[in-house]
Amino acid sequence: MISVGVIGCGYWGPNLIRNFVENEAARLAWVCDTDERRLAEIGRRYPSARATPDYRQVLADPALDAVAIVTPVATHHQFARDALAANKHVLIEKPLTTKACEAQELISLAADRRLTLMVDHTFVYTGAVRKIKEIVESGEIGDLLYFDSVRVNLGLFQRDINVVWDLAPHDLSIMDYLIEREPVGVSAIGSCHVEPGIENIAYVMLHFADDFIAHFHFNWLSPVKIRRTLIAGTKKMIVYDDIEPTEKVRVYDKGVDTRGARDRGDREDDYRTLISYRTGDVWAPQIDPTEALHYVCQNFLAAIRGDARPVTDGAAGLRVVRLLEAAQESIKEGGRLIAL
Amino acid sequence: MISVGVIGCGYWGPNLIRNFVENEAARLAWVCDTDERRLAEIGRRYPSARATPDYRQVLADPALDAVAIVTPVATHHQFARDALAANKHVLIEKPLTTKACEAQELISLAADRRLTLMVDHTFVYTGAVRKIKEIVESGEIGDLLYFDSVRVNLGLFQRDINVVWDLAPHDLSIMDYLIEREPVGVSAIGSCHVEPGIENIAYVMLHFADDFIAHFHFNWLSPVKIRRTLIAGTKKMIVYDDIEPTEKVRVYDKGVDTRGARDRGDREDDYRTLISYRTGDVWAPQIDPTEALHYVCQNFLAAIRGDARPVTDGAAGLRVVRLLEAAQESIKEGGRLIAL
Amino acid sequence: MISVGVIGCGYWGPNLIRNFVENEAARLAWVCDTDERRLAEIGRRYPSARATPDYRQVLADPALDAVAIVTPVATHHQFARDALAANKHVLIEKPLTTKACEAQELISLAADRRLTLMVDHTFVYTGAVRKIKEIVESGEIGDLLYFDSVRVNLGLFQRDINVVWDLAPHDLSIMDYLIEREPVGVSAIGSCHVEPGIENIAYVMLHFADDFIAHFHFNWLSPVKIRRTLIAGTKKMIVYDDIEPTEKVRVYDKGVDTRGARDRGDREDDYRTLISYRTGDVWAPQIDPTEALHYVCQNFLAAIRGDARPVTDGAAGLRVVRLLEAAQESIKEGGRLIAL
Amino acid sequence: MISVGVIGCGYWGPNLIRNFVENEAARLAWVCDTDERRLAEIGRRYPSARATPDYRQVLADPALDAVAIVTPVATHHQFARDALAANKHVLIEKPLTTKACEAQELISLAADRRLTLMVDHTFVYTGAVRKIKEIVESGEIGDLLYFDSVRVNLGLFQRDINVVWDLAPHDLSIMDYLIEREPVGVSAIGSCHVEPGIENIAYVMLHFADDFIAHFHFNWLSPVKIRRTLIAGTKKMIVYDDIEPTEKVRVYDKGVDTRGARDRGDREDDYRTLISYRTGDVWAPQIDPTEALHYVCQNFLAAIRGDARPVTDGAAGLRVVRLLEAAQESIKEGGRLIAL
Repeated sequence: MISVGVIGCGYWGPNLIRNFVENEAARLAWVCDTDERRLAEIGRRYPSARATPDYRQVLADPALDAVAIVTPVATHHQFARDALAANKHVLIEKPLTTKACEAQELISLAADRRLTLMVDHTFVYTGAVRKIKEIVESGEIGDLLYFDSVRVNLGLFQRDINVVWDLAPHDLSIMDYLIEREPVGVSAIGSCHVEPGIENIAYVMLHFADDFIAHFHFNWLSPVKIRRTLIAGTKKMIVYDDIEPTEKVRVYDKGVDTRGARDRGDREDDYRTLISYRTGDVWAPQIDPTEALHYVCQNFLAAIRGDARPVTDGAAGLRVVRLLEAAQESIKEGGRLIAL
Repeated sequence: MISVGVIGCGYWGPNLIRNFVENEAARLAWVCDTDERRLAEIGRRYPSARATPDYRQVLADPALDAVAIVTPVATHHQFARDALAANKHVLIEKPLTTKACEAQELISLAADRRLTLMVDHTFVYTGAVRKIKEIVESGEIGDLLYFDSVRVNLGLFQRDINVVWDLAPHDLSIMDYLIEREPVGVSAIGSCHVEPGIENIAYVMLHFADDFIAHFHFNWLSPVKIRRTLIAGTKKMIVYDDIEPTEKVRVYDKGVDTRGARDRGDREDDYRTLISYRTGDVWAPQIDPTEALHYVCQNFLAAIRGDARPVTDGAAGLRVVRLLEAAQESIKEGGRLIAL
Repeated sequence: MISVGVIGCGYWGPNLIRNFVENEAARLAWVCDTDERRLAEIGRRYPSARATPDYRQVLADPALDAVAIVTPVATHHQFARDALAANKHVLIEKPLTTKACEAQELISLAADRRLTLMVDHTFVYTGAVRKIKEIVESGEIGDLLYFDSVRVNLGLFQRDINVVWDLAPHDLSIMDYLIEREPVGVSAIGSCHVEPGIENIAYVMLHFADDFIAHFHFNWLSPVKIRRTLIAGTKKMIVYDDIEPTEKVRVYDKGVDTRGARDRGDREDDYRTLISYRTGDVWAPQIDPTEALHYVCQNFLAAIRGDARPVTDGAAGLRVVRLLEAAQESIKEGGRLIAL
Repeated sequence: MISVGVIGCGYWGPNLIRNFVENEAARLAWVCDTDERRLAEIGRRYPSARATPDYRQVLADPALDAVAIVTPVATHHQFARDALAANKHVLIEKPLTTKACEAQELISLAADRRLTLMVDHTFVYTGAVRKIKEIVESGEIGDLLYFDSVRVNLGLFQRDINVVWDLAPHDLSIMDYLIEREPVGVSAIGSCHVEPGIENIAYVMLHFADDFIAHFHFNWLSPVKIRRTLIAGTKKMIVYDDIEPTEKVRVYDKGVDTRGARDRGDREDDYRTLISYRTGDVWAPQIDPTEALHYVCQNFLAAIRGDARPVTDGAAGLRVVRLLEAAQESIKEGGRLIAL
C-alpha cells in the first residue's frame, strides 16, 4: 500500500482525499491545511490520518511515499520542490506551476531522483475525453482541421488568478492530450470588467505550423453555462458538450469534399455542385461515467509502483504552463502573437 | 406608388421581389438577371414586370424610381454607381461594397443627388434584434461589457468570397446597430481547410477604446448550427439565440457586483464573499414574427418618400465594409491588430 | 401522363397541387374550390389547369384520370363516391371519412371498379417514419412493448371537428404503419375548455390482446409544442421527435433484462442486482429530408399505373377511422372501453 | 432541541439523517436499520447517535421526541402506529401507507394524542413547486383547465411495488398541493413488460366534477428522462420541467379566447378570426435552490413545537393514498372508472 499525504484541503483537496481513501492501493497518512478549522473538520472525517497545518511535517515523515499538492498555484513550485527533495512522489493540482521554468525544474528534479511527477489534468481522465481520444486515434474522423472550445458561465471569481489561469488548464490539457501537436504561437485578448487587473473574459488562439487552428473562449461573466468543444476532421466531426447529462460526445458523419475541376459558370449553383456535402448518421457513444479523479489516483499509484506511466506527466504540465504564460503575455501586449 | 426594379434574381433576389410585390406602396416594374433561364422563370411568376438580362436597360427607364441590387458583391459598386447616376434610389444587398472607398463614393453620389442609398442589413430589421435594441436603449442591462457572437454551421461554400464576407455582415451590422460605438481596431485569424485562399473558419475581434470587447466566430465547417450572441451589461445579460423557434431573446437578471473593501485572508472563501452574484428571473419577451424583409422594403420606400430615414443607410454599410476590410487584412497578416 | 384534378384549395390543397405540378408523371388538369376568390388565386398561379367551383364539372371530364379530395372531412364520402362512380382514381386527405361504414363503401366501390383508393396519411411517407419502419422491421429493437405519442401545441382550432379528429389521424396512421397490430379496444377521455362540444384536449389509449399498449395525448391548448413518440422494444428503444430540425429519430441501446432467480433478501439492493440495465450508444440515423407529399403523389401515380400498391390504401384509412370513431364514442361515455 | 430517531437507512434515510443533523433545532438520537452492515456504516458516520436494528428499542427511549420512518411502504402503518402509541411525533416517507384505512387510523391516533403526523411529500417543498403555488394563488394564470404530468425514465425497478406506487406519489402530491380540488374519479391503465404483476408503465387520469382534468404518465422503461408538467389556466400556462438545471418553471403568456358571435362562412379562415390567440412573453422566475428536505425537516420540527402546521399532514398523505388505491384498482379492472 502506498502511503499518501494530501496538502491542501480547500475546494478540490477533499475530492482527492476521498478518492485515495476509496482506493485499496493507497493509505491516507496525512492531511494538511493552514486553515485550522478546515483541518479539524477533515481530521474528524478521516480520523486514521494525521493532521497538521505545516506541510514540512508531512514531508518529514520517512514512511510517507507520496503527496498530492492541492494548494493555490503560487505555492505549487515550492511545495513540490521540497517534496521531491524529501523523496516523495508528487501529484499536483493543475496548473502545474506559475512559470515554465519552475515546471522544468520540477521535471528535472523528479527525473534525477526517479520519482513520479504528475499533474492533475482531471478532464483528461473523464470517460468523454478518453472516448474522443479513442475515436481520434482510430482515424475515423480523418485529419484534424480545428479545435474550438467554449467554457463560459457565471463563474466563481478567483483571487489573484484570472479566468485564463482558472479555466484554460482544462481545455488546453484536453487539447494537448487529444491533438498531440505542438503549437508554434499563441495570441490572446482579455478584458477586466469586474476586478482591475484580473481578466474575466479571454479569447485564446493557438497557431500551428499548418492550417490547423485551436481557439478558446473563457468567461466568468456569462449568463448561461456553455462547455462545448467542436473538433473537426476531414472525415467526421465531433461535438463534446459537457453540459449534456448523458450524450456528452456526438460524432457527426458530416463534412465537405471538393473536386479539382470547377466550372466557371456565372451562377453559384454551378459551383456548389462541385462542393460535395456529406450528411450522415450521428452517433453518441456510451461514456464511462466513472469519476475522473478515480482514474487520476489510480494512474498516480500505478506510476509510483512502476506499472504505468502518468498520462499527464510533468511534461504535459509544462506544455500547458507554457501556453498559459504565452497567453498571459499576449493579453498584456494587446493580442500580439507570442512565438513558442 | 414607387416603381422598383430588382437586379439579380439568384438566391436572395426573389425574396426582395416578393416583398416589393406584396407592398402596396411599390410597383415591381423590372426584373433583371444575366441567367436567361432564371429570368424567364421569374418573368412567368410576375408577368406584369418587364424582364431583361441587361441592367442598363432597367436604369434607362425614366419612369423607374428605385432599384434593388441583389448581385454578387463584386458588382455592387458599378451597378449602384450607374443607378445613382441614372437618378435611381438604391437598395443594395449586404455587404455594401468590397472596398470602403467604393462605399464612400456611393454615399457622396447619393448625397449629391439627394437619393436614398440603403444597405439590406436584414437582421437589423428582425423582431429579435429590434427588441434587443429596445432593451439596450431602455438602460435595463446597464453599461455594455462585451458582445460575443457565434455563427457556425455546415455552410454553403461561396465562390470568391470567404466566410467573413459571407457571414460577418450579419453580426457586424447587428452589433453596429445595437452598440453604437466605434471600434478602434480589428484583429482576425482564419484558416482555409477546403478551398485554398478561401477561409472557411475565422475569428474576428473588435477592440474599443475602453474595456468593451466584441468577438465573432464564423464557420462554414461546423457539425452543428449555432447562431448565438451573448450581450453582457453591468446590470443584466442577454442571450440571442436565432435557432430557437420562439424564445429567441432571453434577458437574464444575472451579474456580479464587487465591493471596494477586501479581506486579505488566506482562503478563497474570504474573498468570494466580497463578490456578490445576482441570479434572478429570466424573461423571454415576445418577438414580432414579421419577416424582416418586409420592414426593409417598407423602410426603403418610406425613405424614398422622405417619410423616414433608412435605418441601415450608406454610412452603416460603410462602417461594416471597413470592418470587413480590416478583418481580411488582419487574417492575411496572421492576426496583426489593424487600427481603424 | 396521368391527368389529375384537385378538389379543395384551402390550407392543404395547394401543397398537393404543387407536388402534382412538380411530378413529371402527372398533369394538373383541374382545380376546384367553392371559394371563388381562392379559386381565382390558384387559377392565376396555374393557368394551364382549368378552374371550377363545382366538383361535378371536374368529374364530368372524361379525359381526367384521377382526383385528389382535400375538402372538409364531412364531404369526403360524397365526393369520393361520386368520383369513383365517374371512374376516377381517388386520393383523399386524412381522415378518409367520418364513419367506418362510409370508408367501407368507398373501399368496395374502388375494388369493384379496379380503381386506386388512397388516403393521404402524410406522416407515413416522411423520411423519419420510413426510417423507423426500417429499424422496427430489421428486428433491431426486438419485440415491441409500447407506443407513446404526444402531439400538443397552441393549435389552430378547427370548426366542427375536435382535437382527436384533427390530430389523431397523424399518430394513429403512424402507429398503424409501424406496428402492424390490431388493437382490440379503445378508451379515451377529453375535455372542452374553449368551445362547448369540441374537445381541445384528449388522451386516447389503445388496448391490444397482449401487454403491448399505445397511448396518445392530443392537445390544442398547450403552451409548448411537443411532437414526440417513444417506441420501446425488448432490445432497444426509439425516440421520434418531430420538432428536432435534423436528429428526428434516435435509437437508444437501452433496456432492462430480468433474471429468473431472485434473492429474497430484505433490501432493495439485493433485488436490483438481478435486474440488469443496458445503457449503450445512441444513434441518430440520417433521415431523407424529401417532402413527404412528394412520395404521396408518387405512390398514388404509381398505383394508378399498376406499378405499386398504395402504402396507405383504403383499408389503412378505414382502420384509422374505426379508431377515431371508437375514441369519440369513448369520450362521450366518459372513458368507457370500446371493444373493436 | 427536538430529539429525533430515523428508522430506515436505505436509499432515502441518509438524506433525512443529514438534514436533521444539519438542523440546529434537532438532535439525531437514534438511527435504526435491520441491515447490520448499513447500520454500522451510518453509525460510524454519526457516532453521537445510538444505533439499533430494532425499531422498538428506538421507540422505547422516553427521551426521544420524534421519529422519521423511511422504510418500505408495507411497514409504514405498523411502525407509525407503534411510534404514535409510544407518544412520538412521526414523519413518514411517501406514500403514507398502502391503504387508505391505515392512513385514517394513523390520523385519528395522532389527533387523539395531539401528536404531529406528517408525510414526506418532498416535491411540495421544492423551490419550483412553491413558486408555482405562489403563481397559481396570485390568480395570474386564471382558472385552471388541466394538469398534465409526465415522469418517465429508465428507472430503478422496485420490488413489490409498481411504477404507480413508486412515482405517482410525487406528482399526485404536487397536484394535490397546487390544485386544491378533490377528484371525483380515477381511471388508470398499466402494463407489465418486465416483471409479471408489477406494472412498469401506467397512465392515470383523474376526473373532476367539472371540465378540469388531470393526467399522468409514469414509466420505468423510457429511453429518455422526462419530468414535465403542463398546467394550463384561462389566462396563462405554466411548464414545470424538473430536468432543466435552472429555468425549471416557465410562465407562458399564451392562451385562447373565443368570441360569442360566429360567422357561419364556409371557410376555416372565417372561423379562425373569431378565436383569438394570445402569445406574449415567457417568464422564468428565479427558484429557491435550497434542498427540499431542509424545508421538510424544518416544517416537521416547527409543527412539533406548535409553531406551524405541517404542509403535508396526514390528511394530505391520505388523499394521495386514496388516489393510489383507486388507480391500482382501475388498472386491475382494465381501466374502469373508480368513483371516489
